[in-house]
Amino acid sequence: MFRTAIKRMAAYEPGEQPRPGRRLIKLNTNENPYPPSPGVRKVLAGAANLLRLYPPPRADELIDQAARVYRLPREMIMAGNGSDELLAMLFRAALGPHHKVAYPLPTYSLYDTLAKIQEAVVVGVPWHHEFILPLDELVRARAQLTIICNPNSPSGTLTPLAEISALAKRLGRGLIVVDEAYVDFADSSALELLRDHPNLIVLRSFSKSFSLAGMRLGLGFAHREVIDQLLKVKDSYNLSRLAIAVGAQALRDLDWMRRNVDRVKSTRERVTGELRLIGFEVPPSQANFVMARKPGRDLAPIAAALRKRGILVRHFPTPALKDAMRITIGTPAEMKALITALRLLMAAALAKTTRRGAAQVR
Amino acid sequence: MFRTAIKRMAAYEPGEQPRPGRRLIKLNTNENPYPPSPGVRKVLAGAANLLRLYPPPRADELIDQAARVYRLPREMIMAGNGSDELLAMLFRAALGPHHKVAYPLPTYSLYDTLAKIQEAVVVGVPWHHEFILPLDELVRARAQLTIICNPNSPSGTLTPLAEISALAKRLGRGLIVVDEAYVDFADSSALELLRDHPNLIVLRSFSKSFSLAGMRLGLGFAHREVIDQLLKVKDSYNLSRLAIAVGAQALRDLDWMRRNVDRVKSTRERVTGELRLIGFEVPPSQANFVMARKPGRDLAPIAAALRKRGILVRHFPTPALKDAMRITIGTPAEMKALITALRLLMAAALAKTTRRGAAQVR
Repeated sequence: MFRTAIKRMAAYEPGEQPRPGRRLIKLNTNENPYPPSPGVRKVLAGAANLLRLYPPPRADELIDQAARVYRLPREMIMAGNGSDELLAMLFRAALGPHHKVAYPLPTYSLYDTLAKIQEAVVVGVPWHHEFILPLDELVRARAQLTIICNPNSPSGTLTPLAEISALAKRLGRGLIVVDEAYVDFADSSALELLRDHPNLIVLRSFSKSFSLAGMRLGLGFAHREVIDQLLKVKDSYNLSRLAIAVGAQALRDLDWMRRNVDRVKSTRERVTGELRLIGFEVPPSQANFVMARKPGRDLAPIAAALRKRGILVRHFPTPALKDAMRITIGTPAEMKALITALRLLMAAALAKTTRRGAAQVR
Repeated sequence: MFRTAIKRMAAYEPGEQPRPGRRLIKLNTNENPYPPSPGVRKVLAGAANLLRLYPPPRADELIDQAARVYRLPREMIMAGNGSDELLAMLFRAALGPHHKVAYPLPTYSLYDTLAKIQEAVVVGVPWHHEFILPLDELVRARAQLTIICNPNSPSGTLTPLAEISALAKRLGRGLIVVDEAYVDFADSSALELLRDHPNLIVLRSFSKSFSLAGMRLGLGFAHREVIDQLLKVKDSYNLSRLAIAVGAQALRDLDWMRRNVDRVKSTRERVTGELRLIGFEVPPSQANFVMARKPGRDLAPIAAALRKRGILVRHFPTPALKDAMRITIGTPAEMKALITALRLLMAAALAKTTRRGAAQVR
């Protein structure tokens, strides 16, 4: 009934989205702790009247506003039902069976799922020490599609623009995607590289900086020739009228977003310091989360213990990541609760290890 | 950069969605002339708070409500960003290069686009006279996927359940999709066949009967084994929190939908009679539109003349359909304006033909 590749594969596993009604400190899927703008609220209040008719297929109002904000022509912009949908379109349009897609590992694991759907071959190249881009290896992969998540998840680290630019150039006609879901929390964006690289696609999300994870909104930027091919594999009406209106309004209320981003960044700096004091390795993050690592130690029990205390963080049960947790930056109060809980848990874990060590000596 | 199949294909062309601000009688894309329920309005008014967090990946609130309304277990239901997205998922999961997809023609032309994206082969089988299902030919096609749009677009005609059931049985392990986007305006639904046919998938849309074309909402019903495969090719968060809340509310307000459906159906019967009086052939419609046909005559100029008068209808410029227009059932006032305009246009066209005929005789 179904393609063999589909029957064999497992579905992508998103982070836990708790059922409503549970009071949890939710730091596991990188949402924004602050609400979307009051303008967004107003848009929705009068929105029921919009719903009877189909939306404009190209999301005009949103694209127009994005063209103003990002100073690019409309033809270089497209909108997705989340940047996840834009990623899916890219895989669909660029990759067939046995084609290659390359990216540094570890990174956003959805790429693996999308590759399986297309029956494409993944060339996963480990980051160099401290999340430095493995540039030569990526070029040598000669993939149809190369992806850099920047800032990267789950490390939070940023690859400098000069390296992205060098990679784009050396890939020639191979497409390069810079997945900038978290870039509003960072110091630079690959958007400024677009002009010089016809093979570059930059993806943005409204889920993090704009506090709109529940709305499903993303933008893709590329040369017109690239956008035109992607539009062919887009669902005709991929964005609802509400998503279009809300997205356009969020882009009008940029100051609101920037203020929340500043708050998250200042919390992030404080939390990074506190986690290091507790003994975690924390790579410098340019995103709205941090990766806390205890090299060699499986942190699954710590994540589970936090969950029991009503605090969700993301633990990935893979060999490369099991000694790490990805922690979203919440409000200062949420982070205080997290740090307090972690301090206790790590002290208890340490005491246990020490006792076990002592017992073994005896 | 992109797959050859993508570079060669054209994008699907949706019906015209006019820019806001134009006053038009819009009868070209089968929307509902009446608004969504007041409950939907209420849901949106307080919805901004929902948007900060990711939606539940399986759209729980909506699926729960659908399970109650359609009396099926949750595991047999999935939700899509419009039934278009569910169709795309089906093509993606079932069809690879050179696989076959079969359906009677003419029908919803999006199927052709989705087949091209998958590099699948389309086996298009013409409807028998008066839109009777070409059952034997569809069975002989031995396709991985067989689709019946029921009621069919653009004819509006309904294939009886007994024939769907016979087809499903004879297709064996081949998947059969019954696309019921318009079924709330019809007398029977294939949902009741689900129990007996593990290869059957029934698709529903909120765009027509529920007046929610702008919200992008669809449902798919099938045996659990089928749903489980489809979920693998679904975007993790394919429905926004607003879509989930609005869809669940619409299913709670079923009476509102039924009342609007009754109004549309009674307008449809009247309009069918009036169009026949003007001289159109109109197959009996079980949908929220009718097909008006003048065999052998290209109706493109009539559709264009209607547009000049601010009335949009759908004309498909293909050999098989150029002598037809698909007309959405609007409000009684909108339909009165349409009939008045059509009566004038057809009389003028007839006079012109007669003059031309007379001139040729002379």
